[in-house]
Amino acid sequence: MDGIRVITCDIFGTTVDWYTGVAEQVAKLLPDVDAGSFTSQWREKYLPSMANVREGRRDWAYLDALHRESLDELLARHGLDPDEDTRGRLVRAWHRLPAWPDSVPGLAQLSGRYTTAALSNGGFALLTNLVKAAHLPFDCILSAELARNYKPDASVYRTAARLLDVEPGEVLMVAAHGWDLDGARAAGLRTAFVERPEEKGPDHPADRAEDVTADLSAGSFTELAELLSRG
Amino acid sequence: MDGIRVITCDIFGTTVDWYTGVAEQVAKLLPDVDAGSFTSQWREKYLPSMANVREGRRDWAYLDALHRESLDELLARHGLDPDEDTRGRLVRAWHRLPAWPDSVPGLAQLSGRYTTAALSNGGFALLTNLVKAAHLPFDCILSAELARNYKPDASVYRTAARLLDVEPGEVLMVAAHGWDLDGARAAGLRTAFVERPEEKGPDHPADRAEDVTADLSAGSFTELAELLSRG
Repeated sequence: MDGIRVITCDIFGTTVDWYTGVAEQVAKLLPDVDAGSFTSQWREKYLPSMANVREGRRDWAYLDALHRESLDELLARHGLDPDEDTRGRLVRAWHRLPAWPDSVPGLAQLSGRYTTAALSNGGFALLTNLVKAAHLPFDCILSAELARNYKPDASVYRTAARLLDVEPGEVLMVAAHGWDLDGARAAGLRTAFVERPEEKGPDHPADRAEDVTADLSAGSFTELAELLSRG
Repeated sequence: MDGIRVITCDIFGTTVDWYTGVAEQVAKLLPDVDAGSFTSQWREKYLPSMANVREGRRDWAYLDALHRESLDELLARHGLDPDEDTRGRLVRAWHRLPAWPDSVPGLAQLSGRYTTAALSNGGFALLTNLVKAAHLPFDCILSAELARNYKPDASVYRTAARLLDVEPGEVLMVAAHGWDLDGARAAGLRTAFVERPEEKGPDHPADRAEDVTADLSAGSFTELAELLSRG
């Protein structure tokens, strides 16, 4: 992996555990539903909601707005009608999520050799607050918001490279999702898969290394840092 | 100072000592000039070069490009003709500058209570690299580049507030320059002056507290953190 200068990292699922974090808030705020199942159903609406923006069927909208729309649909489907305050708190469950145990030490190692950046579909403010609360040692926050589009659109990855004044081929995109790495590769970035078998909770399979195309594959950020330090 | 949620900080002169850092590189790369005087003359072209962008006389240009143009003019005025490599290294002198001694501990204190962001006319890549090398503990990097304009244009301060999802009045702009705080105030931000008497070297007076209008005034980032902790 010669010539890498910047490491951009996906956030939801890759550095933090959205399933556990969101399901805990759902259990607290909607005690009558199966929190794990509700969380999974909510996340299933994630990629389709962003596809509407990427494919030009609607104008740019913040991830918070997309999360709110998909939450409202899901609540109606479950016959639930919580108040405005509860709906707002559920949307903000995505703003504060626990880091996987290897994320902080692995990113700290990577940060010694590379410029490290968060690069997520979460908004700039959401990411700044989430990264700070989880103590993830990134050098800067990038967001799909800065391109007013969503991953896997090539503009998001290329905006990241442009803002950090490097060529796309000098950027290594790290993610736990094959679709994100496919998008990064199409934009000219290099790719590293971090396998997170628990990402989607006990009932839904996560992406596995054998099914994903990537330049590198690791089981954690600390393993990734070790692979890169071997040169 | 109730209601402050975000602290945005100017960089050149406010958190880092550009005069010492640039003069050291000038002394090394242009041994025949008076390094301090050359550095001061270079910096004097800073605000006029950006005014051309702000006032629409030219398209957006990166700070590196403006620094290069003003360097080329200055070298010609001094009858100097260094090679391309030397010119590039001089421009990059602005990418790595020493922090004032109070900047790191003061920002660390502020970061415990507020979201902290770099907000400079330096480009996003320049700031990311400079902040990392100087170990300044910001939560995120913002740059005038994200508004494709320059401070003191109101769009720069308002873009910062928008990206962090707060109202302009919830942002405290910290700077060692009256013109920056005047711009921030006009955009609806609150303002704190940090006096840096040594900023422009021994032969040029820096902005002094008695001449600057600001909501707060301090002699260092640690003093500012203390003033804010008093409520």
